[in-house]
Amino acid sequence: MAGQKKMKADVPRRKLIADKGPLSRATLRLRIVFSAERKIGPGKVDLLETIARTGSISSAARELGMSYRRAWLLMDEFGRLFKRPILTTAAGGAHGGGAELTDFGRAVIAAYRRIEDRTAEVVRSELVAFESDINNDP
Amino acid sequence: MAGQKKMKADVPRRKLIADKGPLSRATLRLRIVFSAERKIGPGKVDLLETIARTGSISSAARELGMSYRRAWLLMDEFGRLFKRPILTTAAGGAHGGGAELTDFGRAVIAAYRRIEDRTAEVVRSELVAFESDINNDP
Repeated sequence: MAGQKKMKADVPRRKLIADKGPLSRATLRLRIVFSAERKIGPGKVDLLETIARTGSISSAARELGMSYRRAWLLMDEFGRLFKRPILTTAAGGAHGGGAELTDFGRAVIAAYRRIEDRTAEVVRSELVAFESDINNDP
Repeated sequence: MAGQKKMKADVPRRKLIADKGPLSRATLRLRIVFSAERKIGPGKVDLLETIARTGSISSAARELGMSYRRAWLLMDEFGRLFKRPILTTAAGGAHGGGAELTDFGRAVIAAYRRIEDRTAEVVRSELVAFESDINNDP
């Protein structure tokens, strides 16, 4: 079980740089850093998106192979970045009765995904000249 | 002395997202991941650039507050990404007689810096709509 959790945590959703060719094996990791504890990166965005889909922080944490506590802390940190809430939670049960994204939370995710898409295109366009120089060996 | 080294290592060159306004406090961290051990990120690029300026791996390592061994390993990892050398080193002395970037190495740095500039512009353009929603509190 622990192994399965680990495996899931090791394969988060990552933005591919190209659909085919050598660069299709490359992925992008983009982090926007406001300060040491105020960052937006793929970890927080994947988690928020998983909460939107599963309807609760605990289900999303389970799916991504992290503790409820870690998921809660990540969302707390993410939420503090903004003046408006990204998430509403309902009381009930040990770990709350469920969580729902606000329209603002959905807009933040959408902006990050657009940034990823546009950045992947930038990277592809700059690295395409280097494709024949990149080693394919692992 | 150790404190000074630490301080230097804590303030690597980072790409700012905007020149003014709330986003001017945000920086960008961009990593292109080919595999677990094959990544291009700000750490390797900063180091390669510092080697170009100082003329040796040991001077660059000292300036960035890392061990010679770590710097050497990072450059070895960086170099293995490509079929062509990014760096030429001369023998002599305990830590080699100096290092010089190849034209190819300089082209790789230039491409990464262009990617950073263009990505910062993408992030700025997408986040500008959120500026009034971002908390300024630390």
